[in-house]
Amino acid sequence: MGFELKILGANSAIPTATRNTTSQLISINQSHYLIDCGEGTQIQMRKYRVKMQRIKTIFISHLHGDHFFGLIGLLNTMHLLGRQNELSIFCPPGLREIINLQLKVADSRLNFEIKFEELEFNNGQNHIYSDNIADVYTIPLDHRIPCNGFLFVEKPKNRRIKKELIDKLKIPIEQLPKIKEGADFHREDGRVFQNEEITLPPRKSYSYAFCSDTRYNDRIVPFIENVDLLYHEATFTEAFRERAQQTYHSTARDAATIAEKAKVGKLIIGHYSARYKNFDQHLEEAREVFANTELALDGHTFSSRDL
Amino acid sequence: MGFELKILGANSAIPTATRNTTSQLISINQSHYLIDCGEGTQIQMRKYRVKMQRIKTIFISHLHGDHFFGLIGLLNTMHLLGRQNELSIFCPPGLREIINLQLKVADSRLNFEIKFEELEFNNGQNHIYSDNIADVYTIPLDHRIPCNGFLFVEKPKNRRIKKELIDKLKIPIEQLPKIKEGADFHREDGRVFQNEEITLPPRKSYSYAFCSDTRYNDRIVPFIENVDLLYHEATFTEAFRERAQQTYHSTARDAATIAEKAKVGKLIIGHYSARYKNFDQHLEEAREVFANTELALDGHTFSSRDL
Repeated sequence: MGFELKILGANSAIPTATRNTTSQLISINQSHYLIDCGEGTQIQMRKYRVKMQRIKTIFISHLHGDHFFGLIGLLNTMHLLGRQNELSIFCPPGLREIINLQLKVADSRLNFEIKFEELEFNNGQNHIYSDNIADVYTIPLDHRIPCNGFLFVEKPKNRRIKKELIDKLKIPIEQLPKIKEGADFHREDGRVFQNEEITLPPRKSYSYAFCSDTRYNDRIVPFIENVDLLYHEATFTEAFRERAQQTYHSTARDAATIAEKAKVGKLIIGHYSARYKNFDQHLEEAREVFANTELALDGHTFSSRDL
Repeated sequence: MGFELKILGANSAIPTATRNTTSQLISINQSHYLIDCGEGTQIQMRKYRVKMQRIKTIFISHLHGDHFFGLIGLLNTMHLLGRQNELSIFCPPGLREIINLQLKVADSRLNFEIKFEELEFNNGQNHIYSDNIADVYTIPLDHRIPCNGFLFVEKPKNRRIKKELIDKLKIPIEQLPKIKEGADFHREDGRVFQNEEITLPPRKSYSYAFCSDTRYNDRIVPFIENVDLLYHEATFTEAFRERAQQTYHSTARDAATIAEKAKVGKLIIGHYSARYKNFDQHLEEAREVFANTELALDGHTFSSRDL
């Protein structure tokens, strides 16, 4: 299983009966990372059969409600369903207090630790997280209140040993990890097999940039250059360009312009204003600038197979 | 239009893909009152086409999340959709701080006033609200944290003038309001028509008691005696009676016993534990004690026509 992005909600500000507010799940090799958590995110997870306890880290971009009102409910449910594993939450300062206050009035204590990692806001890109699967960096966005996007970069993967050679050359199991990391195979009889002879190159490592909410600002281009997949908010169509500026949001064309300048592989747009019944116009306007654009829609999945 | 109760959510603690946590809408003559507001309540309102701006007052029973996590999102949406009318929220102390903190971090201000009315918790029944349509009283419940139920009592209605007599006796329009209130009709020619001759009795005024969350406790019986409609939580079936006690919840039979002792018209049970796939067993166990029992199910409406 490779990289996979699941859209749990793609509406801005107001949810409707069929469209939830922002939340996205990134899955890489069974590890789940959650970005933003609008109201009803846990219900979306139920609907789309997400294993919520597998989420190890949550990233919250900013403290507008459509990006975090669902967090306290999700934490509560994780607790009630028996979670014990620590959970890290990368978020703006202020969220910890909100969560703790809601636990306090309920006279509740969660059975698992939450590690709040409060993010800084500056004009640069900070490396905030690393595990054996991925690195995560902030992307400085341009919104009414402090707001970070997030860049996920899969760690380089190991080389793949040509399976048929394991038996043929009698490679001992205990040597496989080193060979995957690039070592040559020194056989007992003294023969040496170069790593390139016995392995295939590593599978591709993917990168994903999440940019919501933000006004058009091309200072982010160097931070997201050449990513395989970019999500960029596109709250409005061109007809509402002025409103986009006023409210620190982007149009679909803005999103596509960023994608084009950053030479990304594929663009996904979302964070639609509730005023739109469908997003044909968003898609058309974006594709005029950047052809490989798709719509974020609740429940849709974009996987490395599509990239 | 008479009295109507709409179930927006009837699950306890954890929402599922098809069952939301507690929220109920009471509609009396176009006036909407909301009781509790679990996560996703605003989404349920969209689904069931509730006119949310018509809500004038919200009653929150207690500060466990499944009864109020949806409130901040609802308030936010009311604001974004242009609400200007004041909203009253009757709630335990602590909720105001939670709401205000979430507005503060978002650097937001609502365009309408919220009047927080902080409730007291004692063993008695307090008259907390009155308008021209109904009176509302607390019901002291027995839960792990302070928790009030709510009793809605429709105001007595006016007598109904026999329509055919308005023309026949030439009753002037300006006299109709007084006659509806019980006055006799003194005609210009000196003739007097007794009120009972020219009017029909008022339509029935309904009463509704909401009791969630609570352990079985029959001290509430005198406070809800003879109500037309009782909602009483029934988190568990008899198989989990001990768990009900431990967690300060009721079984379906508990709810029915209260209904029977209080001689109510109809009982609705709900607040189901997420462990149940269906509620046949709840219904069966309740009906053994109180026959006129129905299940609360998301989207179901109970109106005065059913009572």
